[in-house]
Amino acid sequence: MKKSAIALVVYCLLMPVIGLAQKTARPGIEQLQSPQNPRLGFMIHGGAGVIKRGSLTPEREKAYREKLEEAVLAGYEELKAGKTSLDAIQRAIIIMEDSPLFNAGKGAVFTADGKNELDASVMDGKTQNAGAVAGLHRVKNPIILARAVMEKSPHVMMIGDGAEKFAREMKIKLVPEKYFYTERRWNSLQRIIKREKGKKVGSVSSLRELPENKFGTVGAVALDKEGNIAAGTSTGGMTYKKYGRVGDVPVIGAGTYAKNATCAVSATGWGEYFIRLGVAKEISSLMEHRGFTVQKATDQVIKKQLQDLGGDGGVIAIDKYGNMGISFNSEGMYRAYIDKTGKPVVEIYGSEEPVAASK
Amino acid sequence: MKKSAIALVVYCLLMPVIGLAQKTARPGIEQLQSPQNPRLGFMIHGGAGVIKRGSLTPEREKAYREKLEEAVLAGYEELKAGKTSLDAIQRAIIIMEDSPLFNAGKGAVFTADGKNELDASVMDGKTQNAGAVAGLHRVKNPIILARAVMEKSPHVMMIGDGAEKFAREMKIKLVPEKYFYTERRWNSLQRIIKREKGKKVGSVSSLRELPENKFGTVGAVALDKEGNIAAGTSTGGMTYKKYGRVGDVPVIGAGTYAKNATCAVSATGWGEYFIRLGVAKEISSLMEHRGFTVQKATDQVIKKQLQDLGGDGGVIAIDKYGNMGISFNSEGMYRAYIDKTGKPVVEIYGSEEPVAASK
Repeated sequence: MKKSAIALVVYCLLMPVIGLAQKTARPGIEQLQSPQNPRLGFMIHGGAGVIKRGSLTPEREKAYREKLEEAVLAGYEELKAGKTSLDAIQRAIIIMEDSPLFNAGKGAVFTADGKNELDASVMDGKTQNAGAVAGLHRVKNPIILARAVMEKSPHVMMIGDGAEKFAREMKIKLVPEKYFYTERRWNSLQRIIKREKGKKVGSVSSLRELPENKFGTVGAVALDKEGNIAAGTSTGGMTYKKYGRVGDVPVIGAGTYAKNATCAVSATGWGEYFIRLGVAKEISSLMEHRGFTVQKATDQVIKKQLQDLGGDGGVIAIDKYGNMGISFNSEGMYRAYIDKTGKPVVEIYGSEEPVAASK
Repeated sequence: MKKSAIALVVYCLLMPVIGLAQKTARPGIEQLQSPQNPRLGFMIHGGAGVIKRGSLTPEREKAYREKLEEAVLAGYEELKAGKTSLDAIQRAIIIMEDSPLFNAGKGAVFTADGKNELDASVMDGKTQNAGAVAGLHRVKNPIILARAVMEKSPHVMMIGDGAEKFAREMKIKLVPEKYFYTERRWNSLQRIIKREKGKKVGSVSSLRELPENKFGTVGAVALDKEGNIAAGTSTGGMTYKKYGRVGDVPVIGAGTYAKNATCAVSATGWGEYFIRLGVAKEISSLMEHRGFTVQKATDQVIKKQLQDLGGDGGVIAIDKYGNMGISFNSEGMYRAYIDKTGKPVVEIYGSEEPVAASK
C-alpha cells in the first residue's frame, strides 16, 4: 500500500510534465494528416479590415461574393486540369487584380501624390524560389511580373522603373497610368486629404484613423495534384501613402511564403507589423520547429503575436495535405476556399462558419 | 498491492513520454548563459566572398584590417559611453560606408547602367521596430536614412525617389551621384561588361562567374548596457545588376533581424538565397523555437540550409548576453569584434581563430 501510494504521488507529480509533453511534442507535419491521395486545395483572400455587417450595401456585398466565387473556382479549375499550384494562384489573382473591387491591379488605391503604386510577390513551395516586385506604376497584372522575376531572372526582387523595364523585355502587359483610375479610390484619397489637413504628415495616429488604408490586398494559396504548394499576394498599397512606402506584400517572409515541408501563406493587413514579425515565415517556422498544425500556427501568429504588437490583419495558409488555416484579428476578411466536397465557400464577416468546421 | 502495481505500470508506460518532454523542453535562451552583469558586445562585417590568402596585396590587406579595427572600436566606444546598440551600429556602419574599401556608401559597385544603387536596413531588438531603404542614388549614408524611416516615420520600408524625398525632409545628407564614383568599382564594371558580351543577359550561370559581385556589404550587431540588441546592414548591391534588382539587405528577416529575446543578425552574401531562406529570421527562430545557441543557429542556417540550397555568404549575430555567433560558407569574410577583454579582433580568412575560442 505504501509503494502504491508513492507511485500514485509520483504519477500525480508527473501530470504537469505529461501535459507539457503533449503541448510541446513536435509530431512533424507529416503525422498530422496524410491521405494516400492528397486532395487539391485552394483558398483566396481579398483583404482584411473593418468590414462590419451592414456596412456594405446588399449590391456591393453581392458583387464581392460573386467575384470571390469566380476567382476561387477559376483557380480550382486550373488544379483540376492538372496545372500547377503556381498556375492556380496566378489565375485567381489576375481575376481579382482585374476587378475594381479589390486594392490590387485595377482597383489600386492612390498615393498622396495621386498615383497608383503596385507591389506583388509569389513563392514556389517545391523549390523555395520566389519573385517580388514593388513600386510599379504601369504593369497591369503585377502577379505575372512577380512570377516572371522568379522564373525568368536570376533575381528575387525588382523595384520601380527597373522592374518595368524587365516587364517590357518579358512582353508583360503595360497600361497607361490612367488605367488604374477608379472614382471610388480617387474619392477615398480626397476624403483623406481633407481630413489630414493640418495633421502631422503620416503620423501613426493619423494612419490608425484611416481604416480604408488597410483594405483589399488580394492573395491565394494552392495545393496541386503533384503535392506542391505555392502562395501569391498582390496589392495597391495604402491610400495616401508617401515616400515610396512599401508594405509587407513584396517582402518574402512577411506577406508571402511557401515551403512544401510546412505551408504556403498569403497575408493581408497593416504591412509594417507584418514585416516586423515576418508573419508568413513565422507561421512556417512554428510548423517546422514546433510541430504546430497550420491552423494553430496561423492563430498563434495573428491572434497572439500580431495582436500583442498592436497590428491587425489576417492570413490564409495551406499545407501539403490540403489542411487549411485561416486567421484574422480584424472584423472581417474577404475570403473563399474550396471545401472537401469541391464546392466553393465564400465568407466576409468574422462570425461566419470557420474553415475548420467544413473539413 | 493491485493499485500499486497499476500505478507502477502507468509510471513505466509514461517513461517515454517523460523522456520526450525532456528532449523537447525548450530551455529558452535565458537559460543558456546569464551573467549578472551582461557585458557589452559589438561585432561588424565588411562582406563575405572568395577572399583567398595572397589574393590581397599586403597594403590592401593592411588597409582592410585598419578600417575594420577603426570601425569596431568606434562602435564599441559608443557602447562604453552608454549609448544604445543602435547608436553603436550606426557609428561603425557610417565609417565603413564612408570608406571606398567596402561595397556600401562611397565604395558602392556600379549597376549595368553605370549607376550606384544603395540599400540599407536596421532593426531594434527591444521594440522589434525596423527601417529599410532600397534603390537610393544620392543618400551619402543609407544607414542613417534606414534609421530615420524606423524612428521618424510610421513605415518600415521606403524605396527609390520617395525614400530620397523623405531623406530631404529629414535633412539627411544627399550627395551628387558622382560622389559614389571610384576607379576600382568602375573598372570592375568594365571588365564584366567585356566578359558578358554575347552571353545571355543576367543568367544565373553568368552571375556565378562573377565573384566580385558578392563582395563587401557591411553590417554590425551590438549589445548595449541596457541589455538591448540591434542589427544594421548597408550595401551597394551587385556589380552589373539590372532591372532595379534588390538583394536581401533591405528585406527585414533576410539580411537583418533583431529581437531581444533571441538575437540580432546582419548578413552578407548572395542576396537571392538569403531572401528565399529568410536567413536572419531563421536564426532567430531556431533560438526561439528550438533553444539553439546563437553559434549553433548561425551554423545551422549557413552551413546547412544555405549550403544545401546552393547559396553562399555569411552572418554575424549576438544575443542579449553578449554571446556571439559567426558563420560563413565562403572562403573568407571581413569581420571584427570586441573580445571579452575589451580588445578588438580583426579577421579576414576562413582559417583564422574562430570567435568561439576567444570567449
